[in-house]
Amino acid sequence: MDSDTEILILGAGPAAIVSAFTAHTYYPDKKITLIKDIPKGVIPCGIPYMFSSLADPEDNKMGTQPLEAKGIEVIIDKAIKIDRQNKTVQGSSNNVYSYEKLIIAVGSNPIIPPIPGIDKQGVYPIYKDMTYLRKVIDKIKSQKNILIVGGGFIGVEFADEISKMEGVNVSLAEIQPQILSNSFDAEFCLLAQKKLEESGVRMLTGTKVMEFLGNETVQAVRLDNGEELKVDSVILGIGAIPNTKMAFDAGLDSGRGQGIWVDEYMRTSDPDILAVGDCAGKKDFYTRRNAAVMLASTATAEARIAGANIYQLKVVRENKGTIAIYATYINGLVLGSAGLTEISAKKEGFEIVVGQTEGSDKHPGSLPGSQNVKIKLIFSRQSGIIMGGQVCGGISAGEIINIIGMAIQQRVAISELETLQMATHPYLTAAPTKYPVVLAAQDALTKM
Amino acid sequence: MDSDTEILILGAGPAAIVSAFTAHTYYPDKKITLIKDIPKGVIPCGIPYMFSSLADPEDNKMGTQPLEAKGIEVIIDKAIKIDRQNKTVQGSSNNVYSYEKLIIAVGSNPIIPPIPGIDKQGVYPIYKDMTYLRKVIDKIKSQKNILIVGGGFIGVEFADEISKMEGVNVSLAEIQPQILSNSFDAEFCLLAQKKLEESGVRMLTGTKVMEFLGNETVQAVRLDNGEELKVDSVILGIGAIPNTKMAFDAGLDSGRGQGIWVDEYMRTSDPDILAVGDCAGKKDFYTRRNAAVMLASTATAEARIAGANIYQLKVVRENKGTIAIYATYINGLVLGSAGLTEISAKKEGFEIVVGQTEGSDKHPGSLPGSQNVKIKLIFSRQSGIIMGGQVCGGISAGEIINIIGMAIQQRVAISELETLQMATHPYLTAAPTKYPVVLAAQDALTKM
Repeated sequence: MDSDTEILILGAGPAAIVSAFTAHTYYPDKKITLIKDIPKGVIPCGIPYMFSSLADPEDNKMGTQPLEAKGIEVIIDKAIKIDRQNKTVQGSSNNVYSYEKLIIAVGSNPIIPPIPGIDKQGVYPIYKDMTYLRKVIDKIKSQKNILIVGGGFIGVEFADEISKMEGVNVSLAEIQPQILSNSFDAEFCLLAQKKLEESGVRMLTGTKVMEFLGNETVQAVRLDNGEELKVDSVILGIGAIPNTKMAFDAGLDSGRGQGIWVDEYMRTSDPDILAVGDCAGKKDFYTRRNAAVMLASTATAEARIAGANIYQLKVVRENKGTIAIYATYINGLVLGSAGLTEISAKKEGFEIVVGQTEGSDKHPGSLPGSQNVKIKLIFSRQSGIIMGGQVCGGISAGEIINIIGMAIQQRVAISELETLQMATHPYLTAAPTKYPVVLAAQDALTKM
Repeated sequence: MDSDTEILILGAGPAAIVSAFTAHTYYPDKKITLIKDIPKGVIPCGIPYMFSSLADPEDNKMGTQPLEAKGIEVIIDKAIKIDRQNKTVQGSSNNVYSYEKLIIAVGSNPIIPPIPGIDKQGVYPIYKDMTYLRKVIDKIKSQKNILIVGGGFIGVEFADEISKMEGVNVSLAEIQPQILSNSFDAEFCLLAQKKLEESGVRMLTGTKVMEFLGNETVQAVRLDNGEELKVDSVILGIGAIPNTKMAFDAGLDSGRGQGIWVDEYMRTSDPDILAVGDCAGKKDFYTRRNAAVMLASTATAEARIAGANIYQLKVVRENKGTIAIYATYINGLVLGSAGLTEISAKKEGFEIVVGQTEGSDKHPGSLPGSQNVKIKLIFSRQSGIIMGGQVCGGISAGEIINIIGMAIQQRVAISELETLQMATHPYLTAAPTKYPVVLAAQDALTKM
């Protein structure tokens, strides 16, 4: 059945959903339709936790009832072609959907590198599809030797979570000398590695998988050091590439990055088409380079800009580029990062000053449940502006990185951070005399 | 023994200690001496937790070894007189201490209202003195009926903590219709009250204590509703007044507030004397009125400004006034506040818009340990600038209020908050689609 709508949204991940809600908030009279190809989606960042932490994998489903409750139409179909001339999208059902404004939020696809044997059974890329994931989970629960390929945050979270299952041997292979090295400097990467080792994960850093061995089903992998590692299942957490084929087939610009080119209000080269989330091109907040950052938090920030400004520029707040802010949780240890690391800032040629501190996340530190918190802040030497930060600690570190993120987005000066007013409480934070964001700034300031 | 020093600091609370450390950092060649009258101090915000949470009250001591390790001299004496002409301070020991620069950080004294019988034994003001507090704790541990007078955050924390002791009946009397009403709007105050009631605290809001009854020792109190409440001990948590006598005796200005007048660099009317912490005058960040805010976080921010700028203006970051940011913890429930409340903003005549949201602090909400988080943000209608925020939730709310605090101190616009990039993680935060700071901003923006 063909359908006329006013705002058509392709996709059903966080970028699509937030675009739909925001557009509904700002343009309540417009008809909004969302087309999604996976009948039953999942909350992307919750995927690792479907293996063990969640009582039932179904608890991680991403439903569309909240959309429908607002009068947003949801159609299951696979968009396959955009006709910009006639302002329509064709589905694989052959239905045709017309639009006034189109938001492309079709996400990314997992990278499947050309390693011999990668197409064997038992080698699982991660798709955001409940039906697929339930099969993977059921399979892995009955098995013993699991290999995770890729030590980015997805790989690390899978390794931690699967290691909680009984009777499994988990290994993690990362081609770089350290895990998480895109987001953290070496000293933080090592803390994460140590924590995974404590969980019983065998860490194969600086290690390349050369071949997947076995007949139809994977039985072992051959590593670049010659070792043959017995495996029953392999999870690929290598990264993702923007899903851009349909957009580029329709003649939309790519700019110089991998994603669909967008301006600061998420408009593509076609004034009636916007793109948000993993499929849209991204720039780094400070370096202005194309950035291959795929994070739900970046995607939702873009979606809020797109949804508000789709017909006219209502919210004067353009997309300033991604600060690549994220947090992860490894067996009780929280790691967060935002902006540039020391190593990435130096690589870009920034002259920087680094401040560091470490202490208890409660005060006095003898209070029950207290954990160590470690903070590193990166400042531009000339301007004194904060350029990045990393934190490692207990649960509260998950929001401490958002304090740092706010400071980065507001380009806060080091002296403002050194004299920050902050709420402190024995059970909740470090002491006011030793608040770590302040002490790290002070440490850097004395080196300026 | 008389003593010559260069930087003389009076006091040993957070303001004094941070002044000393900061001065040492910026002026490492200067001789720094700190005079304190209480031989064994305590961490002020940890006082309530000496009753039950801490294994040993001594765990809450505020030692001076870290000062001495940096070469800062610590002298036990009570400063009683400042001679500005000769630039000396006289101690009650009759020793005389000369200075080049003097920092007054002598704190505040508990308010002891003129209620008949308040001087009976068993009625305890809270002094920041380990020896005194140990006696109070030992006494209360052997008793049954405890009354807390005052429902500010100190009173509330005492009530919660003492209610954890076995076999005690705790009552809390607050003269206002609600507890915590200086820092929270009614709906948040009620959440705190409910939590205390769940802990078994009898809440006597809107209730005035008219008289303390008994012979030498208090045995009951008479309330304004006529009730006589049997009590074994009473803790006074009514508030504090700046300790200014010595400063005013020396002719320093008071300005129009209760504290010692200071400029934006914490300098008093005497160019060689600075004042920081509870004894120093405070202005509200937005209203510019004198503010009776006594918080360690405000005090330490002031101390960092004073310590850095004592000889010359090194850190260009003047004191912008207090944002009255604080967090408290009641039986697992965290409440945080910063800036103006809805009621205080309206009282000041600000035209405001309020945004609110409520949801899970993890995602999906079915993850173990997830708690409800509720946020309220106050914006100026004309300028769109954030003026205040309140949060209630689990442990992470203790740092969420610091995200809001950073936004207030940076005068962030509502559209920046609505499109904020933030780290999210299933175990650590709300979902990126529902991050509460963002949703509360969006709720307000749609009402602008």
